[in-house]
Amino acid sequence: MPFVTIQIGEGHSIEKKRELAKAVTDTLVETLGTKREWVTIHIDEFNRDNWAVGGELHSDKHPGRHAEKSA
Amino acid sequence: MPFVTIQIGEGHSIEKKRELAKAVTDTLVETLGTKREWVTIHIDEFNRDNWAVGGELHSDKHPGRHAEKSA
Amino acid sequence: MPFVTIQIGEGHSIEKKRELAKAVTDTLVETLGTKREWVTIHIDEFNRDNWAVGGELHSDKHPGRHAEKSA
Amino acid sequence: MPFVTIQIGEGHSIEKKRELAKAVTDTLVETLGTKREWVTIHIDEFNRDNWAVGGELHSDKHPGRHAEKSA
Amino acid sequence: MPFVTIQIGEGHSIEKKRELAKAVTDTLVETLGTKREWVTIHIDEFNRDNWAVGGELHSDKHPGRHAEKSA
Amino acid sequence: MPFVTIQIGEGHSIEKKRELAKAVTDTLVETLGTKREWVTIHIDEFNRDNWAVGGELHSDKHPGRHAEKSA
Repeated sequence: MPFVTIQIGEGHSIEKKRELAKAVTDTLVETLGTKREWVTIHIDEFNRDNWAVGGELHSDKHPGRHAEKSA
Repeated sequence: MPFVTIQIGEGHSIEKKRELAKAVTDTLVETLGTKREWVTIHIDEFNRDNWAVGGELHSDKHPGRHAEKSA
Repeated sequence: MPFVTIQIGEGHSIEKKRELAKAVTDTLVETLGTKREWVTIHIDEFNRDNWAVGGELHSDKHPGRHAEKSA
Repeated sequence: MPFVTIQIGEGHSIEKKRELAKAVTDTLVETLGTKREWVTIHIDEFNRDNWAVGGELHSDKHPGRHAEKSA
Repeated sequence: MPFVTIQIGEGHSIEKKRELAKAVTDTLVETLGTKREWVTIHIDEFNRDNWAVGGELHSDKHPGRHAEKSA
Repeated sequence: MPFVTIQIGEGHSIEKKRELAKAVTDTLVETLGTKREWVTIHIDEFNRDNWAVGGELHSDKHPGRHAEKSA
């Protein structure tokens, strides 16, 4: 009963989320042999003001980057 | 010092959250014998576009369901 | 589709975990009206060397406390 | 900078974990167009005594199932 | 490759988040000797209606407290 | 009521964990002005077979690195 949490920058379209949920589920079914209906995916979007690498906020580091690209 | 995270679909009223926090805390105190003031509850609401079971988004699977019922 | 994570000190018996999982599931079904089979519970046990309140490790603060009581 | 947490039953071999980490990373790179080196995967294994669906511990529900199959 | 999640009440300014991300990263680098660029910080803000201690919602317990102070 | 989860490679000594919990708590108190006793720290250690960056397990990438250094 895999439970997968995917933390990505906010701003992805529902089409992209639909594609992501399907693709990651496919990958788990193929790799682990688990039943498809047992796989739960949670897309946990973060605001780029709330994510830092190397001590610098993502929104400071890449001010002009669109959310879709900053995943 | 139990810390409980409850992930549910968004859209519950504050009355329902108040009832939920109280009831889950009661259950932990009764079951584990922990002190009431040591129990922390975090209600972590998800958007139904961000949750998938069996590779399908919750908002695609149940388009007409109200958030309150889709917990 | 509630997903509940319960972080407690390690050392509880399987009987206690069974009771806890059942009781918290009952509480969610009663409070939220969700279907029973949709509730997932994850008991995430922590080592008392890895948990601190007020900057002090739980194992330093309560050296003689049994895990079962320190939930 | 996607961060992915995969919660599965414990007992998978390192070969299976290696395959899983690679496959999920591939899926994120293809789906989101993110840079490969930005993807972090955390495989968070749970003991089957600590996971319940519908109020019943996984180890009670499937006592004879091997961990590898119960993912 | 430390990954740090900081759950605090919502409503902090970006200046405060910037200061927090930098200060916690500094602390990890000094304490663990890890490389600065390996540290990721996620500030996960919660709504005070969704957080309870001792069975009481934070927003009920401290109705007049500002988010900035209620961290 | 900040709740901080620090995910690091396993194998740190209790002295190092004590120092880490104290230092991160100090940092939160100074930065956010929160009360010391409200800060909870959870050190969540991962096995290096269960962590991958860029699709490669940490234990494959750095086979000779000691856990203490691989934080």
